[in-house]
Amino acid sequence: MPPDSTATKARLLDAAFAEFAQYGLAGARVDRIAEAAQANKRLIYVYYGSKEQLFDAVLAQRLGALFDAVPFAAEDLPGFVDSLFDHAVASPQLLRLARWRQLERVESSAVETQWRREMVEAIAQGQKRGVITTDIEPADLLTLLLEMTTSWFNLPSAMSEVAVAEERSPQRLQRCRAALTAAVCRLFAPSPHAQLQGVGAETAIPD
Amino acid sequence: MPPDSTATKARLLDAAFAEFAQYGLAGARVDRIAEAAQANKRLIYVYYGSKEQLFDAVLAQRLGALFDAVPFAAEDLPGFVDSLFDHAVASPQLLRLARWRQLERVESSAVETQWRREMVEAIAQGQKRGVITTDIEPADLLTLLLEMTTSWFNLPSAMSEVAVAEERSPQRLQRCRAALTAAVCRLFAPSPHAQLQGVGAETAIPD
Repeated sequence: MPPDSTATKARLLDAAFAEFAQYGLAGARVDRIAEAAQANKRLIYVYYGSKEQLFDAVLAQRLGALFDAVPFAAEDLPGFVDSLFDHAVASPQLLRLARWRQLERVESSAVETQWRREMVEAIAQGQKRGVITTDIEPADLLTLLLEMTTSWFNLPSAMSEVAVAEERSPQRLQRCRAALTAAVCRLFAPSPHAQLQGVGAETAIPD
Repeated sequence: MPPDSTATKARLLDAAFAEFAQYGLAGARVDRIAEAAQANKRLIYVYYGSKEQLFDAVLAQRLGALFDAVPFAAEDLPGFVDSLFDHAVASPQLLRLARWRQLERVESSAVETQWRREMVEAIAQGQKRGVITTDIEPADLLTLLLEMTTSWFNLPSAMSEVAVAEERSPQRLQRCRAALTAAVCRLFAPSPHAQLQGVGAETAIPD
């Protein structure tokens, strides 16, 4: 490999991230990625093997950075979702990449599987300590938590001010975040019958 | 138009639905749609104008059918999400179509905008009657409600048994649905302090 392979790889990953986020896996053009990275197209195949593998490498890199930047905290789920929400606001491209993956590439990456396993375990521990409701099983609580956080970014134009950088209003984002925090507090609070008689008691899941 | 235009249009919409769900808007091929519908490709342009407009027509048709099949009921949100969840299980193609739209076509259709407006209004009425929490504003409650319902279908392989027809297990689906119902009951229940104090629901609602 040439001496500047690290720099070239970094440029290729950045260019691929922008290309895949915009056009998805099938729509992305290797020629455009090479041109944007000012690299020889052949190097993509030398370094990554295929367009599909380049897609996986980009996703793993970006999710790894996300997982490092937003540590999971079962003790402070509102704080966690706040951070995750801010990250989603700051990086709409990563959300797009994740959506394309859903449609075009079904497999989970190793880093995702690992992150998910750790979070499920942390929620289970929180349930054992009595700080998280036991009405819903850990894996389902995690699924709901993560999807609730990105809810607003899935909306079509009615809410596109959240998804489209140019149209975002700080006031609207603030209200979305407040709603998210309130919802997560409600959803994850220890079982109501432990605190209040009657509220939600009918919702207990049969084993 | 030829006398069988209704039947031809129906075949074109069905073929377009399958094609767009699989490949998205950019990836869909008008040739394949025409061939699957056993129709002349030219008729697509005669009837719908463009591939984009055909996409919009398919989405409007399928969402219209969904909105008819699953009436919104602010009085029974758990029942509503149960029905919506079952519909999502039965029609993974419609979920895919909605995801492609998010990525490739930002505009809301008129039928979606109308449906959304009606649901927000119904939630606001439910809040006034004291059957739904006032901690979160109606539009945000609706966003959370709809996204929570489709949460499991956004997961990569860890949960692909829900998304992929061949791998779905009735037991797992049952547990997802139970978790969803429990979560919605928790999220939408009137504020605990309003019940504890035993005050009339109306007096607890700020206007």
